[in-house]
Amino acid sequence: MKATVDGKKVDIPAVWWENGRIAAIDQSLLPDQVRIVRYDDYRDLVTAIKSMIIRGAPTIGAAAAYGIALAAAKNEDVHVAAEALRATRPTAHDLFYAIDWMLAHLDDPVRSAEEYARMLVDRCRKIGEHGESLIVNNAKILTHCNAGALATVDFGTALAPMRIAKRKGKRFFVYVDETRPRLQGAALTSWELAEEEIDHAIIADNAAGYYLKKDVDLVIIGADRIASNGDTANKIGSYEKAVVAKENGVPFYVAAPISTFDFSIKDERDIPIEHRDESEVLQLAGRRIAPKGSRALNPAFDVTPARYITGFITEMGILKPNEIGKLNR
Amino acid sequence: MKATVDGKKVDIPAVWWENGRIAAIDQSLLPDQVRIVRYDDYRDLVTAIKSMIIRGAPTIGAAAAYGIALAAAKNEDVHVAAEALRATRPTAHDLFYAIDWMLAHLDDPVRSAEEYARMLVDRCRKIGEHGESLIVNNAKILTHCNAGALATVDFGTALAPMRIAKRKGKRFFVYVDETRPRLQGAALTSWELAEEEIDHAIIADNAAGYYLKKDVDLVIIGADRIASNGDTANKIGSYEKAVVAKENGVPFYVAAPISTFDFSIKDERDIPIEHRDESEVLQLAGRRIAPKGSRALNPAFDVTPARYITGFITEMGILKPNEIGKLNR
Repeated sequence: MKATVDGKKVDIPAVWWENGRIAAIDQSLLPDQVRIVRYDDYRDLVTAIKSMIIRGAPTIGAAAAYGIALAAAKNEDVHVAAEALRATRPTAHDLFYAIDWMLAHLDDPVRSAEEYARMLVDRCRKIGEHGESLIVNNAKILTHCNAGALATVDFGTALAPMRIAKRKGKRFFVYVDETRPRLQGAALTSWELAEEEIDHAIIADNAAGYYLKKDVDLVIIGADRIASNGDTANKIGSYEKAVVAKENGVPFYVAAPISTFDFSIKDERDIPIEHRDESEVLQLAGRRIAPKGSRALNPAFDVTPARYITGFITEMGILKPNEIGKLNR
Repeated sequence: MKATVDGKKVDIPAVWWENGRIAAIDQSLLPDQVRIVRYDDYRDLVTAIKSMIIRGAPTIGAAAAYGIALAAAKNEDVHVAAEALRATRPTAHDLFYAIDWMLAHLDDPVRSAEEYARMLVDRCRKIGEHGESLIVNNAKILTHCNAGALATVDFGTALAPMRIAKRKGKRFFVYVDETRPRLQGAALTSWELAEEEIDHAIIADNAAGYYLKKDVDLVIIGADRIASNGDTANKIGSYEKAVVAKENGVPFYVAAPISTFDFSIKDERDIPIEHRDESEVLQLAGRRIAPKGSRALNPAFDVTPARYITGFITEMGILKPNEIGKLNR
């Protein structure tokens, strides 16, 4: 992705292998500064994933693959590393998929991890090519959270169709939900769109309904885990947008690689929801916004039932919810 | 309302007349500190309403009534004052209602303004008494923005039924939407509930759908303007909550005095929506959260069509949308 590091425009992925270490963009510092962090111990990577320095379901998966490669390179027990990495975030399926894949490809762990990341980016590019067909000229698109290059090593899932459409010279406009409590929309998605020079505006999450009723042609979001029936876990708030989109006849698409589909679970009842610390809601920029006597509840994800989803944009094409069974063959 | 001023627990309204001046709680400083501001020029009051030091549709109406009394007391042109006050906020109907009422009661302007505020608080108490019947023991209630005592001089609209239920010894729990971009839920509603010792938790606006699907029994919000057909303008995000509530079979109530109904307009198409400065979205606690290359859109209100509204809690009782025509007789 395009990024300005130390005043220089460069093209870098979200996470990569660099001379025996794992390098990554510190996503917790965006959009103020682009800083590259480097880890030579998988335990530090575990901390970075938990604290969301590294975030985005597919990027977390690739980072975990590199983490196992790092443990192997240092002759540490890869199964112990795998368990520690598995315990970082409970909702994203890519994490478990990547770890299982690595444990099955331990002959040359570094090469396997790089292969995993390369396959992931290839899939995202294909998602972009399929999804681009949905973006007509002058379309108004709504997106939620960050399902961009930062979240997927490169290219993005929800943002991939926009990148391809931009390259093809299409004109369109993106409404970016700011995505409280962690503001991934305001801080990350808008940063990616600004770097790509894609026309956009940030809105409070509360304003999505207002624009869905009057102006949005198309919603594209990412996913953290998709059940066999198409029920989709994604950033908290996705469910609300899906319900309001359907109510207004606005097509609602989920962009995700096949690795995000979890055919071991039937429907939303099997998807665990991570609840994060209340301080994310009670504080803004380190300052408490709530009275001392108040507490908060902070579910990080919700599940959008398949009936609200128009289609899934995957590397194999765009599938309706009742067609995803064919992926599990 | 209960408030701790200079370390002392007192019972004060949101705005009042005090020895030839207008006194008010500076709502922009809550919940960190409770500071009383005083104005002896209606032009300063105009600024205070525009900058939301004084906010909440009915409180704005009462403040404007005191503003006209202040102009009259200083032998200034009350019609010039009325026009300046009318131009502060475009969406709230109470403002225009209060100004028209004052212009028809200019024989003793200070007494008229105090009478206006007293009538308003009486209406809120009655709203509370009618609405309390909707709150069963152990109910889970969702509210949005601040339709509390701060917004209505005293007692509140959406919060009035909760105050009465608490006094009657009922047990219940309130989910408080934080209400970006200005955080009236996190800063004001939670402060009022904490002072009343009502059990509550603040949630990101994005989490309302998650709890509407699994746990909320009842939604109560306020209103800034209600059209003849029941279409209701309220804080941005209200529309989304209403759609998701209906989808989940959760009753959705609007609590408002009759003065909020505008029978001069037919439906939502006649309600102007105020768009506020993009800095409210782009900044948090004075710090920019978005990249330099990004802008924001910031509608302050949306309109919930009457078909999503279960009922209106007014001082005359609880009315279904198809019953509000009887108020206009």
